[in-house]
Amino acid sequence: MASYTAPLREINFVLNEVLKAGNLSKTIPAYADATPETLAEMIDTAAKFVEQELAPLNASGDAEGCTRHPDGTVSVPKGFTEAFKAYAANGFVGITNPSEYDGLGLPFTLSKVVEEMVCSGNVAFALYPGLTGGCFEAIYASASDELKQTYLPKLSTGEWTGTMLITEPQAGSDLAAVKTKAIPQADGSYKIEGGKIFITSGEHGMADNIIHFTLARMEGAPAGVKGLSTFIVPKFMVKADGTLGERNAIQCAAIEHKMGIHGSVTCVMNLDGATGFLVGKPNEGIMNMFVMMNLARIMVGFQGLGQMELATQNAVRYALDRKQPRTIIDFPDVRRMILQMKAMTEGARVLAYETALYVDYAHHHPDPAVREEANDWVELNTPLVKSTCTDGAVDLGSMAIQVYGGHGFIIEHGIEQILRDSKILCLYEGTNGIQAMDLVRRKLFLNGGRAVSRYFALLNKAATEAAPEFAFIAEPLKAALADLESATRWIQETFRARPDDASFGCCDYQRAFALSYLGYNWLRMAQAASAQDDEVFKAGKLATAKFFATKLLPQVGGLCASVKDGAGDFMALPTASL
Amino acid sequence: MASYTAPLREINFVLNEVLKAGNLSKTIPAYADATPETLAEMIDTAAKFVEQELAPLNASGDAEGCTRHPDGTVSVPKGFTEAFKAYAANGFVGITNPSEYDGLGLPFTLSKVVEEMVCSGNVAFALYPGLTGGCFEAIYASASDELKQTYLPKLSTGEWTGTMLITEPQAGSDLAAVKTKAIPQADGSYKIEGGKIFITSGEHGMADNIIHFTLARMEGAPAGVKGLSTFIVPKFMVKADGTLGERNAIQCAAIEHKMGIHGSVTCVMNLDGATGFLVGKPNEGIMNMFVMMNLARIMVGFQGLGQMELATQNAVRYALDRKQPRTIIDFPDVRRMILQMKAMTEGARVLAYETALYVDYAHHHPDPAVREEANDWVELNTPLVKSTCTDGAVDLGSMAIQVYGGHGFIIEHGIEQILRDSKILCLYEGTNGIQAMDLVRRKLFLNGGRAVSRYFALLNKAATEAAPEFAFIAEPLKAALADLESATRWIQETFRARPDDASFGCCDYQRAFALSYLGYNWLRMAQAASAQDDEVFKAGKLATAKFFATKLLPQVGGLCASVKDGAGDFMALPTASL
Repeated sequence: MASYTAPLREINFVLNEVLKAGNLSKTIPAYADATPETLAEMIDTAAKFVEQELAPLNASGDAEGCTRHPDGTVSVPKGFTEAFKAYAANGFVGITNPSEYDGLGLPFTLSKVVEEMVCSGNVAFALYPGLTGGCFEAIYASASDELKQTYLPKLSTGEWTGTMLITEPQAGSDLAAVKTKAIPQADGSYKIEGGKIFITSGEHGMADNIIHFTLARMEGAPAGVKGLSTFIVPKFMVKADGTLGERNAIQCAAIEHKMGIHGSVTCVMNLDGATGFLVGKPNEGIMNMFVMMNLARIMVGFQGLGQMELATQNAVRYALDRKQPRTIIDFPDVRRMILQMKAMTEGARVLAYETALYVDYAHHHPDPAVREEANDWVELNTPLVKSTCTDGAVDLGSMAIQVYGGHGFIIEHGIEQILRDSKILCLYEGTNGIQAMDLVRRKLFLNGGRAVSRYFALLNKAATEAAPEFAFIAEPLKAALADLESATRWIQETFRARPDDASFGCCDYQRAFALSYLGYNWLRMAQAASAQDDEVFKAGKLATAKFFATKLLPQVGGLCASVKDGAGDFMALPTASL
Repeated sequence: MASYTAPLREINFVLNEVLKAGNLSKTIPAYADATPETLAEMIDTAAKFVEQELAPLNASGDAEGCTRHPDGTVSVPKGFTEAFKAYAANGFVGITNPSEYDGLGLPFTLSKVVEEMVCSGNVAFALYPGLTGGCFEAIYASASDELKQTYLPKLSTGEWTGTMLITEPQAGSDLAAVKTKAIPQADGSYKIEGGKIFITSGEHGMADNIIHFTLARMEGAPAGVKGLSTFIVPKFMVKADGTLGERNAIQCAAIEHKMGIHGSVTCVMNLDGATGFLVGKPNEGIMNMFVMMNLARIMVGFQGLGQMELATQNAVRYALDRKQPRTIIDFPDVRRMILQMKAMTEGARVLAYETALYVDYAHHHPDPAVREEANDWVELNTPLVKSTCTDGAVDLGSMAIQVYGGHGFIIEHGIEQILRDSKILCLYEGTNGIQAMDLVRRKLFLNGGRAVSRYFALLNKAATEAAPEFAFIAEPLKAALADLESATRWIQETFRARPDDASFGCCDYQRAFALSYLGYNWLRMAQAASAQDDEVFKAGKLATAKFFATKLLPQVGGLCASVKDGAGDFMALPTASL
């Protein structure tokens, strides 16, 4: 069975030595109490909880899966309900929710660090609180005070859980095709009619109520995405005194059988005139959805990071233990895989944590200029975090199996589950191809290209100012940045006239961008590690930085050349020839 | 559900237009009857059989899996036994086995083309005849005439099936650690004692008998691989008249639960004084095993090719059908994935088929010089076919899921099964890292580097002599070959003094080598397609060749740079720092 030990040393190194997250408590008044000590304490508590309560349910949850009964109810795997209640009792569901709505009011960054660990221990479980957080955010951002008062506190405490009802069979990536109908009622509510698919946590008995944040089209609204509105559709109606009333007309019609995340239920939901309450203004639903979607994309990135860590630490342990007849870590190709896994996982952790920090600054920094800049970073980083950590989880899940050899293919070892659980991460909340299109089509042009210009300025400065002892990574980083800047300019210049040409290499571009960012992260980690007394730790970090610099960072050049090569005549090729 | 249509147009194009396999019937007397027409007829028959009988059992076999009963017997999925008997009745099990042992005596190449289709339709099923063929080859190459007469005919007809009993818990990649003991008996037979794991088709009721080709150590034999011998251990003893006698003392103790290929049973086998018959000479077992192992590696390559084709053709169909709201093939990133899948699959097909042709020439060509050269090619190509087609199957299995979006993660669509079924291909018959070590450590040095020198001479000649209209691929091919030659020389010069340094990039080197080979294949396909009248076919081939030339072939340079960068200090890093 795969085992999990929270990588506290790594986590604290990134938070405190690399990213100086302690500054949060100094610069953001709302987080004055979130000192490094407070964060460390919460992280320790969560680490123990994940190791002792969630990780042991990972393999059993995979084996057992979820079951829908003929009456439409759903059973989750054994132990999940108790674990969720204990998780909620620890306050983990609402770590970052405002205290006025019964959250702990602690930094978003802290909630994401906890999420990384939860997603290593049991990524299927993580979806129950994860979607609850997404539902909270969406309601918090757009709903009336009355709706907030009614729904938010119990979504913070985990007494209720949340979902997002977005996808329909004909409307996956194309939300303009959403057909679910909202019919206004005399009392100001709406009757919602339609069918939704791929609804994570759509039905279960782990919590007293389920709040469905639902995308639908009001009768008479325009076609396309500008005719969509968002609604709260509770599983059980909530009475004026806050107690639960009648069952609403929303049902789980079926559940999906999936490649992985078996412990997470994925529902087909039917709404047969279910009562819903409008969130925000009519026909502005797509905007309300995107508030949540952006944070959800970051969340999925953390799911990927958790799985990258799980793959890496198990592969390291196995490679140090297995003899064939030498300990296999001493075979060059195995050592290469281990270093690659560490280089990607630890580099991605800095990207993910830094993005979370920017969310905190964007939401709460007292200086509007800082907030604006932080928001630029969040916009730019979101597709990078989502795609890098999820492609990384699949790559490393596959690589961990290679390290295990034939044993990796056997379910009992718990390693193949990582690959199965991770593949969905590349698909939901926008496939990684859609992330790449978001990067190329939107993020490079945002505010006249401000975010990406700042990116190059900052990274070039860091590479140029690095002390000579870090030239081993600063120099290849400069070369990578030069290639990436050139590809970026090419896209910016080409996109308007020939969007397909500019987009053809979007995934290559996204990967090149992420590798340059990880190169910057490894420069910073090398610098921070050099200041440490622990020679064993320092040697590991410097070697891994060197591996990244020599084996991974040089890929940026080839990727950028491919980007600038464009689509050639490929888009014009008649489909009969394919 | 994934569907499968045998790509007959592609298969015949590669066989007849690109590789001129019709020459087999002219140059090899034994294959005089194997005219292009004969081959085409057999391929058509097999195509229909796979489409109608095997492909429909692929999803159901995955869902049902195999079951071991308390008495040690094993049930295979519904329909597998009937399908196997029909498969055998068609003569498919022994296509290439000599007619003196009841085979059809047809080219190895033909048997592999059939195998590609079988492995697209149902790769789990393919293992039953696949291992039977391996067992046949091993006995045919090394056993006495008496043993051959007793065992080979029924392995050709599929009345009996075969296995390879190699791996033990402590002896995976390290066969020197094999402990299974052979104790000589007065009658010339041996009693075999020990335990084997990961035994494909180790127990089932699909055939009357199972012949276990078993690696064991005679009492008193030297330690290490030079003390290993090979034995035939039948499930049922065979009487002098050829009828079956007593049950031998070999039992299936357990079966594995695996990520994929659920329809193929993987057994833990106990030998409790089972009767075995020595094959070949004492202590030369490892040589006998390698006869079979090399062909088995090519077989696994064809399994990968079959899965690549299955992933590709389903992704193409979906991309041409699914609207979001445009048909998704018109999204640049989707089209990029489709072209990449086709470029890899069709390029790998030429590599695989050409390797099979070389096997035919190596075994049967009347001219010893041709046989020697062909044998060089087989040696060089074996790790390339095995790794390229199996890494390709996993990559394309994953990419097909991306093309399907969230639907790809749902079992019902049959797409995620491709990734699950394919991952084992990168592990068994030597992990792909072991293939890369074989390439770097053995194949580059074989006969003084003769095979690889011939490779560069042939490919450089083809690139140099290509007409100007093919410069779009001939030029990048030349550049790739220059980089690969330089990396090859570096390995050849470095290996003896610093083997770990030379080996560190073995997987990068293997990939670079394969990409150069596929570049050569695409040059040849472009040339052959240009001679065709069918403009739709020609346009597709030329566009895909161009995609390969501009998007994939340029990766060779970066990979080779990484190879020549060596291991740095990575092998010296103390494991405590990992």
